[in-house]
Amino acid sequence: MVSTNAINELENFREAMLPAIEEVLQAEVDKAGGSGTVELREMLRYHLGWEGEGSGRKAQGKRIRPLLVLLAAEAAGGKWEDVLPSAAAVELLHNFSLIHDDIQDNSSMRRGRPTLWTKWGIPQSINAGDSLFALAHDSLKGLKKHSTDVYANSIEVLPLTSLKLTQGQYMDLAFEGKEEVSIQEYWEMVGGKTAVLLATCAELGAIGAQASKERSAHFRLFGEKLGLAFQAHDDILGIWGSENQTGKSNHSDLLSRKKSLPVLFGLAKGGKFAEIWPNWKPEESSVNELARALENDGARGQATDMVGALTQEALTALDLAKPETAAGEALKMLGFELVQRNY
Amino acid sequence: MVSTNAINELENFREAMLPAIEEVLQAEVDKAGGSGTVELREMLRYHLGWEGEGSGRKAQGKRIRPLLVLLAAEAAGGKWEDVLPSAAAVELLHNFSLIHDDIQDNSSMRRGRPTLWTKWGIPQSINAGDSLFALAHDSLKGLKKHSTDVYANSIEVLPLTSLKLTQGQYMDLAFEGKEEVSIQEYWEMVGGKTAVLLATCAELGAIGAQASKERSAHFRLFGEKLGLAFQAHDDILGIWGSENQTGKSNHSDLLSRKKSLPVLFGLAKGGKFAEIWPNWKPEESSVNELARALENDGARGQATDMVGALTQEALTALDLAKPETAAGEALKMLGFELVQRNY
Repeated sequence: MVSTNAINELENFREAMLPAIEEVLQAEVDKAGGSGTVELREMLRYHLGWEGEGSGRKAQGKRIRPLLVLLAAEAAGGKWEDVLPSAAAVELLHNFSLIHDDIQDNSSMRRGRPTLWTKWGIPQSINAGDSLFALAHDSLKGLKKHSTDVYANSIEVLPLTSLKLTQGQYMDLAFEGKEEVSIQEYWEMVGGKTAVLLATCAELGAIGAQASKERSAHFRLFGEKLGLAFQAHDDILGIWGSENQTGKSNHSDLLSRKKSLPVLFGLAKGGKFAEIWPNWKPEESSVNELARALENDGARGQATDMVGALTQEALTALDLAKPETAAGEALKMLGFELVQRNY
Repeated sequence: MVSTNAINELENFREAMLPAIEEVLQAEVDKAGGSGTVELREMLRYHLGWEGEGSGRKAQGKRIRPLLVLLAAEAAGGKWEDVLPSAAAVELLHNFSLIHDDIQDNSSMRRGRPTLWTKWGIPQSINAGDSLFALAHDSLKGLKKHSTDVYANSIEVLPLTSLKLTQGQYMDLAFEGKEEVSIQEYWEMVGGKTAVLLATCAELGAIGAQASKERSAHFRLFGEKLGLAFQAHDDILGIWGSENQTGKSNHSDLLSRKKSLPVLFGLAKGGKFAEIWPNWKPEESSVNELARALENDGARGQATDMVGALTQEALTALDLAKPETAAGEALKMLGFELVQRNY
């Protein structure tokens, strides 16, 4: 299904796009600096991986979302350079949510280095996240050089995207305190927390290429289904990914009693896992056995099938969007990376 | 300077506007609700004073900012009903910042009732603030019914307003840990934390009335100067306002060792206050004496003079904006309320 050609196409695009993405992001983040706010800019530069201990490519993350914007623009017949402001906007929005997530989840590490709040404290880090939220909206103004129509159509999309992100985050946080979470609630949460932003990425690319509403909607659906598949795959890795692969301890999602998709499948099945789970105390010594029970109950297989089905739906949506050749191949490849990665 | 007529004008406008403001705010906040996010909407409704213990007019706050938008629109020759979406946007933005402020300052009470985070915890409250931020941007879409130009010009203003809010907040939080804060730094902080939003209120009103750029800039300057005066006045109340008036304990800003304007004046003077302050431990028993020393050193007078001068600058800017009669009088009156209130 994946051709060497597609791999090369994606690599070529990535090589050209990544430095341009960093450049536009840096220019935007510079706006947070000022005579009295030098350190605020420094905080944002640290979080984005450009500065401070452990800075560099790995600390910057994979910039999946801006790449998705740019590739979608090319695949819809536009020029990726024109939509760099949209690419910056989604990455800033994503990082706003990561900064707040890390505080909310009490996470001390991200991308192999201390999270922002562990270095600057919670009050300043909440505020730094808010700055990125503001900058995400500001970034889109750069589209006006390209086309005022594109700007107007793009700025439309952001507020409800942000709202849905916060709705998804509300549900995710609420799940921790809930006894029972249904599969339906799970998908609603993921729809907000993960899928809406990937959907917006693909749509912003299409809007930037001035694609028709119908074609833009196909791109959006591609991004959305890809986001759902991505999260389901992430949930599998959270249980069965090795420490080497994920950078987190083995079975980390079980140890944190996260109500992820395989767990919900296991509970619905009512087998051995469902029997152990309610009274299970998170312990390294018994987590292997629990993971095995979950796998034997078929939850890993079910989740894997789900990733496959959602990926197929994403590809169908992409076909309907009639992507242009080279960028279309690269976009598919980016999708495969997201749902087949083992890191 | 203040005529009975102006007082009546303001009261008449207020009576008509306040219910309309609540209505548009409620409709916007409803968007946060959904099958899985009923409680998120409830949190926002609690914070905005419509629901839960102690809800009602007092818990809703005075809605100064939306009133400023609507009065500015009328004063610029427009119709206030047309800019209700902008009024909602600034109030939502203001309340987003209050929710995060209360977490950052560890404040347990606001408007006489428990703050959001004390009831729902910090993680969910950070997220609820984020929701309001998103809704503020979404709200402006309502302007399109009135005029797409007004919408386009209004949406331009919000991102940098939000950014400056976070820059002001950065400085405010940073002041706590700083040995010395200059008067210049103080004004820069207040320019972001308080003045930028009032400036934006007045400008959004003028934009809504499709005033010229020059006239809109005069309105903006009016709001900005008013914001600076408002904060200086607030700082005076924070030290010399009585508990009855402010709802906080007497001398609360001294007891929290806040580097507010009178304190900075007192330190610059190098008198008795400057001698006591560095080693003073916040105590009810000695705070009266400290406040007296500060007043004797002339700091209260200096701050009061500053409020007067800034108010004059605000009125000069408003004159240049050539406000229409009735709404212009009401706008001036609203300004006086802000800088002469003793609550």
